Amino acid sequence: MSFTTSAPLSSSTPATIDVLGIGNALVDVLSLTPDEVIASLSIAKGSMNLVEEDRMAEIYAAMGAATEASGGSAANTMAGLASLGARAVFTGRVRDDVLGKVFAHDLTAIGVGWAGSTVSDGPATGCCLILVSPDAERSMNTFLGASSLLGPEDLAFAEIASAAIVYLEGYLFDRDDAQAAYRVASHTAHSAGRRVALTLSDTFCVERHREAFLDLVHSHVDILFANEGELCALYDTTDIDAAIASVREHCPLSAVTLGEHGAVIVTADEEIRVPAEHVTQLLDTTGAGDQFAAGFLAGLVRDLPLADCGRIGNIAAAEVISHIGPRPQADLATLAQSVLPR
Amino acid sequence: MSFTTSAPLSSSTPATIDVLGIGNALVDVLSLTPDEVIASLSIAKGSMNLVEEDRMAEIYAAMGAATEASGGSAANTMAGLASLGARAVFTGRVRDDVLGKVFAHDLTAIGVGWAGSTVSDGPATGCCLILVSPDAERSMNTFLGASSLLGPEDLAFAEIASAAIVYLEGYLFDRDDAQAAYRVASHTAHSAGRRVALTLSDTFCVERHREAFLDLVHSHVDILFANEGELCALYDTTDIDAAIASVREHCPLSAVTLGEHGAVIVTADEEIRVPAEHVTQLLDTTGAGDQFAAGFLAGLVRDLPLADCGRIGNIAAAEVISHIGPRPQADLATLAQSVLPR
Repeated sequence: MSFTTSAPLSSSTPATIDVLGIGNALVDVLSLTPDEVIASLSIAKGSMNLVEEDRMAEIYAAMGAATEASGGSAANTMAGLASLGARAVFTGRVRDDVLGKVFAHDLTAIGVGWAGSTVSDGPATGCCLILVSPDAERSMNTFLGASSLLGPEDLAFAEIASAAIVYLEGYLFDRDDAQAAYRVASHTAHSAGRRVALTLSDTFCVERHREAFLDLVHSHVDILFANEGELCALYDTTDIDAAIASVREHCPLSAVTLGEHGAVIVTADEEIRVPAEHVTQLLDTTGAGDQFAAGFLAGLVRDLPLADCGRIGNIAAAEVISHIGPRPQADLATLAQSVLPR
Repeated sequence: MSFTTSAPLSSSTPATIDVLGIGNALVDVLSLTPDEVIASLSIAKGSMNLVEEDRMAEIYAAMGAATEASGGSAANTMAGLASLGARAVFTGRVRDDVLGKVFAHDLTAIGVGWAGSTVSDGPATGCCLILVSPDAERSMNTFLGASSLLGPEDLAFAEIASAAIVYLEGYLFDRDDAQAAYRVASHTAHSAGRRVALTLSDTFCVERHREAFLDLVHSHVDILFANEGELCALYDTTDIDAAIASVREHCPLSAVTLGEHGAVIVTADEEIRVPAEHVTQLLDTTGAGDQFAAGFLAGLVRDLPLADCGRIGNIAAAEVISHIGPRPQADLATLAQSVLPR
């Protein structure tokens, strides 16, 4: 197993953090929702939509009783890494309100370092209305609030320079400030001899910002996470093999999730298929990609073979889709112990 | 089956609401918590403690990652009644903040009428930190906030007069204003020819306010709900048979829950034992008493025999203790259909 990267792979200073995630700081509002209600709201099943407060109120009024739980894509990945015994830290932006406190509490309570900004004015802490349909598909409606204003000034530079991998969430790409923050974070990481990972997050988000994503992936990213649809969107094709051929040329290491077919890991000279784990009850696919990334990165920072990294990713994803809620409920380190020794 | 009551049992106007609940409006913060953490916080397992903001912050900091879900004892009972197809309305007091919106949303979303007060100043919406230990016992730490200021001026008098049964939550007894509200509500209900139900809620709460509870039970209450400990606390005895003998003299109808032994229903001339339902997985006892009351009342407003009312109560309680969270997740009307025809 080998792969090359455009960035320096070794640093003079050992990393004190395994992965530092940068992404949206959101509290999820989850409700089991019949297909008819989702259709009546004109929500595309499986999509992530950015909504303003009016639209959020409309959707919330139509949703059933809900539970609230901390979420956010990169934050969920950091939660998975902590559950796998890795040293994870998260940076994001919240208001000093109830949901902001909930978000930071839930991270620190599970052993993820909180290196985010808590601000005392501006929009409220972001939230995400998640409608889980009977077939376990999730449709997300995100009010970004305070989270969307993350910019370079919110970055925790010392932590970025101390983390073996900086992990960036594509969802934040909807604002120029956040894109600037990602370029600065990537530069900081590479200057310190660290690696940069990116998850494409969402097909529609990639389509909205294809050029900016291509620039980031081709110039700054060492490790790319995407699902089939997102990778095809990035290369503006419907042919997954063509998309894989493109990403192989431009990115040293990519992990592409394929739903029930598991994942494929792509380097310059390898293409490794990793079958999905068996899932006894599929309840809610929220967080599947996030947990795959967590498992994969947990293996990578331990220098495991890429096939094993993919297997840990699939184990973590299988756990999260077997219950309602975006973060692991079981101890992932125990579930993955045959592949990831403690 | 028969029982007598000191209040008029029939009204000239048919009830348009089956049960109107008055109680604390709280959002629960639930976390699975090891016994050692509960002990280190000096929390008595199984108790309900009223806490100020400092103590709440201390407990929250020691709790693991949590999920938030609407709770409140009487509100949970109204949720159970709605799930059983009964017409339920709730009155309580919240601030116009995020948790206040969550609370009202979750009630209306499940078909419970919201006839509460939403205020624009004063303490925040109340919340309850619930530590669920591995043996499924819950220890509750309640910051009452806006909820505790409920007084007679917050009552929905038209709804009280229109409800066949007004259901009062004992937890609110810690403030004189709320006690006054209960007396006014009872008077309004009786004047309209309706019945008044009370749940004792908590042993410690009963001990703090024994005289006031005795006065309410003996002068105003037609239907009393209690568990063994609470009924013994009310009559300051450790002998449950003595406590049952006392309540029989003073209250027309009592339903006493006995945990795994089910419930006993006590009238002037009857004592009916109702065995507990079989529970395949016991996960979280939060809300067991609330759901027993919901099932019992759902039968009572349909004039079912008292033994059947108790059975519906046990069915509803069995559902809620088989998952995390204080409100039904399954459709109780379906679970109870053999006893409670649609």
